[in-house]
Amino acid sequence: MSKTPPCPEHPSSADAAPAGARRIGIIGAGQLARMMLGPAIELGLTTPVLATDPAESAAAVASRVRLGRHDDEQSVRALADEVEVITFDHEHVPAQILEAIQRDGTAAVRPGPAALVHAQDKLVMRERLTALGHPCPRWWRIASSADLAAALEEAGGRIVVKTPRGGYDAHGVRLIDGADQAEDWLAQHGELLAEELVPFTRELSAQVARRPGGEAIAYPVVQSVQKDGVCYEVVAPAPGLGQEGQRRIQALALSIADDLGVTGMLAVEMFETADGEVLVNELAMRPHNTGHWSMDGAVTGQFEQHLRAVADLPLGSTDPIAPAAVMVNLLGGGAEDLAPGAHAALAADPALKIHLYGKSVRPGRKIGHVTLVGEDAQELLERAHRAERLIIDGPQPTDPATGGDR
Amino acid sequence: MSKTPPCPEHPSSADAAPAGARRIGIIGAGQLARMMLGPAIELGLTTPVLATDPAESAAAVASRVRLGRHDDEQSVRALADEVEVITFDHEHVPAQILEAIQRDGTAAVRPGPAALVHAQDKLVMRERLTALGHPCPRWWRIASSADLAAALEEAGGRIVVKTPRGGYDAHGVRLIDGADQAEDWLAQHGELLAEELVPFTRELSAQVARRPGGEAIAYPVVQSVQKDGVCYEVVAPAPGLGQEGQRRIQALALSIADDLGVTGMLAVEMFETADGEVLVNELAMRPHNTGHWSMDGAVTGQFEQHLRAVADLPLGSTDPIAPAAVMVNLLGGGAEDLAPGAHAALAADPALKIHLYGKSVRPGRKIGHVTLVGEDAQELLERAHRAERLIIDGPQPTDPATGGDR
Repeated sequence: MSKTPPCPEHPSSADAAPAGARRIGIIGAGQLARMMLGPAIELGLTTPVLATDPAESAAAVASRVRLGRHDDEQSVRALADEVEVITFDHEHVPAQILEAIQRDGTAAVRPGPAALVHAQDKLVMRERLTALGHPCPRWWRIASSADLAAALEEAGGRIVVKTPRGGYDAHGVRLIDGADQAEDWLAQHGELLAEELVPFTRELSAQVARRPGGEAIAYPVVQSVQKDGVCYEVVAPAPGLGQEGQRRIQALALSIADDLGVTGMLAVEMFETADGEVLVNELAMRPHNTGHWSMDGAVTGQFEQHLRAVADLPLGSTDPIAPAAVMVNLLGGGAEDLAPGAHAALAADPALKIHLYGKSVRPGRKIGHVTLVGEDAQELLERAHRAERLIIDGPQPTDPATGGDR
Repeated sequence: MSKTPPCPEHPSSADAAPAGARRIGIIGAGQLARMMLGPAIELGLTTPVLATDPAESAAAVASRVRLGRHDDEQSVRALADEVEVITFDHEHVPAQILEAIQRDGTAAVRPGPAALVHAQDKLVMRERLTALGHPCPRWWRIASSADLAAALEEAGGRIVVKTPRGGYDAHGVRLIDGADQAEDWLAQHGELLAEELVPFTRELSAQVARRPGGEAIAYPVVQSVQKDGVCYEVVAPAPGLGQEGQRRIQALALSIADDLGVTGMLAVEMFETADGEVLVNELAMRPHNTGHWSMDGAVTGQFEQHLRAVADLPLGSTDPIAPAAVMVNLLGGGAEDLAPGAHAALAADPALKIHLYGKSVRPGRKIGHVTLVGEDAQELLERAHRAERLIIDGPQPTDPATGGDR
């Protein structure tokens, strides 16, 4: 995949940590931290996690767990004290804590707070990407009901409103057609981001990895499908994009990573419009749900790659191992215990890869994902969704797949 | 790959544990236990390890570690008390401990002691395989110097002598040409196994996985090369074996697994002779060094597969993901710190996969391995050995590969 040479004169997030750090502290103990643990073991990296609860997804299976909150400076500092590099399971760590750690040189922060703010604050992100000339939907900074009314008027009566900070998945996003429908958020947040409702044909996502010195590499651009605002299904590579489309979008993601000085994985979620153009939707600076396919479908999975990038180790090949790979999320359904359905799904499909997050089941909650790798994306998707239904709803008495094993 | 249907009437190692066990205790905390941890996390299995030292390879990175010896009944029982299934990092657990646990129903023991004895005791193994009609080198049970002299005479003056128990890698194996050369072992062990020195053309290894009910599946048969009696290099599949040769040897390994009632992974190490026949050399009932290629080269790696088999979960596809895969062991060399060489090796080859065991470096000690997957085994081997030398000896000042990164 596309690779850019290091760019030494660029004002990057370079820091004092030595190349090839061995102790990487992970702030947050969700499934993204959890899925870093296996690759960390193989690479010989030590990866303590900062968890708020010992039962959290990564905390339950990590060998080193520090209990504390990501927004408590003392807790974050205690983690920083025992590692060379700090990285993230999520983006919600206050910038001033990270800046203080960076200033003191306790540990390198990767991605650094100056980059991370673009994944933390959607207004900052929109302002910066627009200034850099990267393609965005039409957007408005909203500080009052009058701003909202004006934006609604310009946008033709409907508008997407987002809280600048703290949102994830469907949280913090609202489609409105009247200025009064976001009064509560305005009162709560002071400022909001408003965006046109993009008439997109599909959603794409581009993952890239970047080292502190600027070496960067792109994964194949994928197609993603959301369900109630949550990532649900991914096909890699994105069907019908072609080599030229792949290269163009990879180049966009690589240039955003470079412009913002990202270290680690960067996911650029995009809308593709009817004319084949793309508009940047969201940024994430960590492994991302739309990259989970790479765990089983690429030479170097995104969790290993993130660790290599933030440890300042040479990046790994992003080549896919087969013509197509798919990922389907397991969103909490009818079954509270996933084991019977997982058993049935493994029996029905020996090539299926199941990844469970060890989280209690709640409706719609991300509790795991499945992947399949092969020749034909459509056929893989059908198999992956059969597995998904078996796992989240449990095997049904009438289900033929449950008769195949035992 | 070849798959046999369950064989319910066969006297198998069936036990009372439910299908789909979730807590698997691992006796021993070497690199084999360590490499089960990543797949266990993804499958949502809990895998406490019994370690003699908290610094052992798996103990250093596992979330649940119980300190105690594998030959101490109380320690093994304490592990059994917290799991549904007991499995192994090595085969050195006394049978009477396992039999007692099995008898009490504390936990299922997989593989069970009646199967495991064939990997623990080479005399028992030879006797049983010979009785079953499986191909073995000519062998003799040695209880006295007179037995040794007779065997030497029959074998033409040179003979391989093995201690029945406790050997591994090159330990417990000696080539002798005089009856006096094994007096010490005779005095120590009482009985020895003697075998003809097989004029083999190469060594092959066949891995299969088998569930308690009898479902079994074979991996591609591989070619292995030893260095001073230690596994050093593996090519998968074995070059030039052909589909017919593959099927024949897979069928042999599957029938040994079934005959002995193995649960989990079974490795059958074999000699290939000039006439294309194979003779069974050794058995191992756990993931095996000759199967490490499958971590990166097959749909289901052997560590995941072993866990699925002993948990009584449906087995995964053993299909290779590319025409060729190679594995080269990292045996302790000149460098005490592997990080600089690993850094250089990753920089030189973005497709390289490095697995480090977190063990201190001693000359010849297994401290990790590398794998590569691709089209041409010879080319992959050259690259893997370049990486091996960089990692075990460290980058040399004159080495061009070290100039490529930073």
